[in-house]
Amino acid sequence: MEKLNELRRILKNRKIDALLVTQPDNRRYLSRYSATDASISETSGVLLIPRRGTPLLLTDSRFELHAASEAKGFEIMLYPKGLLSLLQKLLPKLKVKRLGFESHYLLHATAGKLTALTNKLGIEAVPLVGIVEKMRVTKEQEEIERIEKSVLLNEQVFQEVFASLREGQTEREVAMRIENTMLGMGAERPSFATIVAGGPNGASPHAVPGSRPLKREEPIVIDMGLILDGYCSDMTRTVVLGTPDQKTVELFRLVRKAQLAATNTIKAGITGKEADRAAREVITAAGLGDKFGHGLGHGVGLAVHEAPSLNRRNGKKLQAGMIITVEPGVYLPGWGGIRLENMGVVEKNGCRILNRDTTFLDL
Amino acid sequence: MEKLNELRRILKNRKIDALLVTQPDNRRYLSRYSATDASISETSGVLLIPRRGTPLLLTDSRFELHAASEAKGFEIMLYPKGLLSLLQKLLPKLKVKRLGFESHYLLHATAGKLTALTNKLGIEAVPLVGIVEKMRVTKEQEEIERIEKSVLLNEQVFQEVFASLREGQTEREVAMRIENTMLGMGAERPSFATIVAGGPNGASPHAVPGSRPLKREEPIVIDMGLILDGYCSDMTRTVVLGTPDQKTVELFRLVRKAQLAATNTIKAGITGKEADRAAREVITAAGLGDKFGHGLGHGVGLAVHEAPSLNRRNGKKLQAGMIITVEPGVYLPGWGGIRLENMGVVEKNGCRILNRDTTFLDL
Repeated sequence: MEKLNELRRILKNRKIDALLVTQPDNRRYLSRYSATDASISETSGVLLIPRRGTPLLLTDSRFELHAASEAKGFEIMLYPKGLLSLLQKLLPKLKVKRLGFESHYLLHATAGKLTALTNKLGIEAVPLVGIVEKMRVTKEQEEIERIEKSVLLNEQVFQEVFASLREGQTEREVAMRIENTMLGMGAERPSFATIVAGGPNGASPHAVPGSRPLKREEPIVIDMGLILDGYCSDMTRTVVLGTPDQKTVELFRLVRKAQLAATNTIKAGITGKEADRAAREVITAAGLGDKFGHGLGHGVGLAVHEAPSLNRRNGKKLQAGMIITVEPGVYLPGWGGIRLENMGVVEKNGCRILNRDTTFLDL
Repeated sequence: MEKLNELRRILKNRKIDALLVTQPDNRRYLSRYSATDASISETSGVLLIPRRGTPLLLTDSRFELHAASEAKGFEIMLYPKGLLSLLQKLLPKLKVKRLGFESHYLLHATAGKLTALTNKLGIEAVPLVGIVEKMRVTKEQEEIERIEKSVLLNEQVFQEVFASLREGQTEREVAMRIENTMLGMGAERPSFATIVAGGPNGASPHAVPGSRPLKREEPIVIDMGLILDGYCSDMTRTVVLGTPDQKTVELFRLVRKAQLAATNTIKAGITGKEADRAAREVITAAGLGDKFGHGLGHGVGLAVHEAPSLNRRNGKKLQAGMIITVEPGVYLPGWGGIRLENMGVVEKNGCRILNRDTTFLDL
C-alpha cells in the first residue's frame, strides 16, 4: 500500500484523478498480479488507480481467479465487451476529470480510441511517461532481498550447467539446458534469451546461440538470467574448457580489472557516466577502448533492463537502493569476446555485489 | 517483390509516399527478415517502403549481417543515433510528403516524437491500421505449403511426446518436453505458450500448465503450435491415459461432430459467423451451448492469431486461401474440458484440412 500512496501523491501533484496502468511490470509492481502479456495487443489486464478509493484491476474472465488471488486490496472488474466499454461506465462513476495514461506503453491506435471516448465523456486524457518506472528505480529492502534470491538461483543454475559443459555440445544445446534447468529449479522463466557464444561468436555482444559446437581453449561467453518471484537476475561468465592461452588470460585479467575499478567507484552520488568511465579507462589504457562498444551496465528489477543506465551519456547521480549490473567486455572480431557481469546494490558508501560465483573471475 | 508491388499500389491509392513498417510479422512478410523483437520497445529494425525506389530496412549494428542475409532487395541502413535521427535525414532525401505509419504497432509516445519530427520537416504523418495485415489474410500457394509443413512438424512433435505420456508426469513437465522437442526437431520456437491441462484444469480454455500430475481416465487437453520458416501451426488434441468413461466418450463425440459440421460448412463465400454457427448448433442441441464459451476459430499465418475470426460477430465472408483453425470445445467447471482443433485452408468449394493426426478424434 505504501507504493500506492506514493503514486497517489504524484497523481495529486499532477492533478490527475486516476491513472490507467498498461505496462505489465508497472502493473505487477503496484498490484502483485503476476500474469504476463503475450504481446502488447493481448493484455492480461490493466490497473485503474483513482487518487482516492479502491484501486481496480480490469481484466477478462480468463484471468479473474488469478488476479483475485494475487492483487490483494484491488477490486477485480471484468470487461466482457472490452476495456473501453468498461471505462465508459467507470470513469464518470469515479468522477474522473483528468485521466492519466502510460504514453510509453499504449499503442497509438488504442490511445486514439481512448481519447475519442474521454472527449465524448468530457474527460481529459493526459499522456504520461515513466511515472511508475521512476518509482521502481530505487528498491525497497524487500525487493533487494528478492533480487538477491534471483541472483543466487541463477548462479546455482549456472553451476549445474557449467559442471556438465563439454567440448562438442552446441551453443543452442547449452542455452536450452540452461533455460530448462532454470524452470526445473523453480524460476518463472528466463529474464532474457540466454546467450552462449563460443570462440569468434563471442565477438558479438548480443550473439544468438547457434549450431556451432564448443571447442577447447576458446572463450565461451555465457550471459543468462532468470525471473524469480517477479524479480530478474542477469549474469555473464566467460569460461574456457581446458587451459586458456596467454592472450585469453591477459584479456580476462583486463576485463576483471575494469570490473573491479567500476565496482570500487560506484556509490550513491556518483553519476552513471563516472561509473562507466572507471571501467572504460582501464580498458582504454590497454589500447582496447574501441573494443568495449557498449555501456558498463543497467538497472535490474521487475524488468531486466531498466533505469539507471551506466554509460557515457548518463550524467544523473546514482542513488542508494538502485540495483545495477557491472559488465565490461572486450570484443575482438574473428577471435571472440570476454564479458564479466555481476549485479550490485548501490549503497551510501559503495557498491555491494550480490553475486558469489567466482568462476573464471580471478585468474 | 509481388507483395511489395501490391503494397505500393495500396500506398498510391492512399496518396502515401512511404510506409514505415514497425509490426514484426509485417516486417517479415514484406522482407523475409526473420529477427524477432524482445518487446515493442526493443525492435530489431523497421522497414521504410517508399512508393518508388529501393525498399529500406533500418536497424542497428547488432542485426546488420542477419538483415543483409535475409532481406534480399532491401538496402540495409543503420541508425547508430536512433531511428528518428536517421529518418530526419532520409525522409527529405526520399522527397516524402506523406509518411504512413502503423498506428496499431507504434507506441503513443513514439508516435508523438515521430509526428514532432515530421511536422518540423513539413511532412504529414498518417496513422494507418492493418494495411499489411489485410494483405496477409489470404495466403499464396507458397505460404500454404509452408504452413502445411509447420502443421506436420507440430504433429510429429505431438506424436513423439504422446508416445511417452505417463500418469504422474506434471502438466509443466509435459509442456516443457513438447517445447524442447519442437526446438530439437527444428522449429524456430513455439507459436504460443503450450497448454497441457489435465482433469478439472481443462475447464479453462487458456489454462497454464502447473504442477498437477496427470491421472488415468481423465481428459488431458494439449494445445500446441510451433513456428517453422516463419509460419505458425496450432493444434489441440484431448487425450486420455487408459480408457475414457462413457461421459468422456460422449463429449468427445459431440465436440468432434461439431468440428465436422463446421468443416463441412466452411468454404469461400460463407461468413465467419456462419462457420461458427455450424459447430455451435451441434453443441447447443446437446444442451451444452453455454459450455462453449469461445469462438470457433481464427486465422493463422506469420501470427498464430490473425484474421479472420470465426465467431458469433464476424459477418465478413471467408475467401479462398485463408487459413483457419476449427476448434470447438466444451468446458465443464470442476470436471474438465474437451477441445479438438485442426487447421484448414478455405477453398472455393470447401475446407481442406491440413492435419493428418487422428489421435482421439473419432472414438
